[in-house]
Amino acid sequence: MADLRSITILGPGLLGGSLALALGHLSSRPSVTVWARRSEAVDEVLTRHIAPLATTDLSAAVGNADAVILCTPMGVMPDLARAILPHLRPGTFVTDIASVKAPVEAALAPIFLGHARWIGSHPMAGGEQAGLHAARPDLFHHARVILTPTPATPPETLAQAKSFWTQLDCTCLTTDPATHDRAVAQISHLPHLLAALLINAVQPDALPFRGPGFLDTTRIAAGPAPMWAEILLENRSAVLAALDQFQLATDRARAALLHQNEKELHDILSNANHVRRSLPAPV
Amino acid sequence: MADLRSITILGPGLLGGSLALALGHLSSRPSVTVWARRSEAVDEVLTRHIAPLATTDLSAAVGNADAVILCTPMGVMPDLARAILPHLRPGTFVTDIASVKAPVEAALAPIFLGHARWIGSHPMAGGEQAGLHAARPDLFHHARVILTPTPATPPETLAQAKSFWTQLDCTCLTTDPATHDRAVAQISHLPHLLAALLINAVQPDALPFRGPGFLDTTRIAAGPAPMWAEILLENRSAVLAALDQFQLATDRARAALLHQNEKELHDILSNANHVRRSLPAPV
Repeated sequence: MADLRSITILGPGLLGGSLALALGHLSSRPSVTVWARRSEAVDEVLTRHIAPLATTDLSAAVGNADAVILCTPMGVMPDLARAILPHLRPGTFVTDIASVKAPVEAALAPIFLGHARWIGSHPMAGGEQAGLHAARPDLFHHARVILTPTPATPPETLAQAKSFWTQLDCTCLTTDPATHDRAVAQISHLPHLLAALLINAVQPDALPFRGPGFLDTTRIAAGPAPMWAEILLENRSAVLAALDQFQLATDRARAALLHQNEKELHDILSNANHVRRSLPAPV
Repeated sequence: MADLRSITILGPGLLGGSLALALGHLSSRPSVTVWARRSEAVDEVLTRHIAPLATTDLSAAVGNADAVILCTPMGVMPDLARAILPHLRPGTFVTDIASVKAPVEAALAPIFLGHARWIGSHPMAGGEQAGLHAARPDLFHHARVILTPTPATPPETLAQAKSFWTQLDCTCLTTDPATHDRAVAQISHLPHLLAALLINAVQPDALPFRGPGFLDTTRIAAGPAPMWAEILLENRSAVLAALDQFQLATDRARAALLHQNEKELHDILSNANHVRRSLPAPV
């Protein structure tokens, strides 16, 4: 497995910018290049020392890369993959950071097949701040990264992905794209949607009575709306299935409240309490 | 308005214990007494220096008190109020910490009328840890306390309540018991229920894919099930109304997902984003 000495990041948003910063802090000192569509973003990358090299020229950005990391919105990735393809050296490692994997896999795997070592990655990092201005070198520190190989993925490519993320203190999990999308629909996309719906259901005159619980529960609803709309729509069948499960749980709780069924309500809360206590406290 | 020099706390749970600790840290050095039903709890209060005085004897606990704070579960409060009544000095300030105010007001106000200066309080503090072992002196630091006077509450009693909580660095808000219960149903009780339902809707095999968002969103579901079952049932009509509002918001989001209505979904997320950004980040 070749060392990834020269790494190019496409798209300096929160994740791309944080990734460039984190790579710049490694003792192995890889060469880090950032490509951005807008020259203003290139300027910001350079003046804020996000990366030592930045350009709007795609061929210059990827021509010497050992690894290319796609950090743009999902919708842009297929066109970007086709645009970089002629400029990649054979065998370049390519991954991404998208939150929905099956559509990205379906679009990108055929483009890179026979040309680059492609595998999907989903780092469970981010937060309610979006954009390069929120980038920080520790965003990936102790983050979980879900890798989504398929039967067509060579073992060396998976090993290279594990090595790439592990050097950044991430913990790697592996599953196939469809299983990934079903799991994150439940554990990430549904929670985001519910946080937004909770805020929309609260009357403005109740907001002053908020306590710390409400602020925690709704933190992720401050995330960027366009990005989350894209994620929810790209993964909509799995999100709808998760919403169905949630509706069943809600209907059961509503019935328990209506009929003042204390035992049933206690069972509902107690099961959740038990599961939540098996997980870590918030960081 | 008389100074509250001698303060008795009934019930050393998380809130009662933390209140005793916070009062003990005041430069004004009030005399703090804790009453507990069980002698083991009295022992723990004394050995852990939660308060210098502790007893299972109710008449001894309240007989010299300038102020009595009811910190037991709500269901116990009416019997406890009747039990302390003969031992209170005339004009003793009495308040509580219950999360639902209309039923407590309805039960306690008639008991204390003409004997003690009663007013309901709801400190928005707590957390997923319950019990005396989790008590800490800074639990009330910068907490919001909702005071719920009625037309029968003398202005001096309200002023005394404000003075009591303000000395602990709390911020006081004032509203009537019914408005309080409608507001906290939306801003506290519904969020707690939803956090529990979200956990119950997630399949166990999706849990390993959790990120920081899921941990924040569900933190409060680790709260004590019996206490939350009591709160939800005591406030069930307001909680059911809040759940209805939430259902309308959910139905709208489901339709937007089903019909791939990106604009509608964007509007939903964007409204929530706007409101959430007007509130503070989690502490």
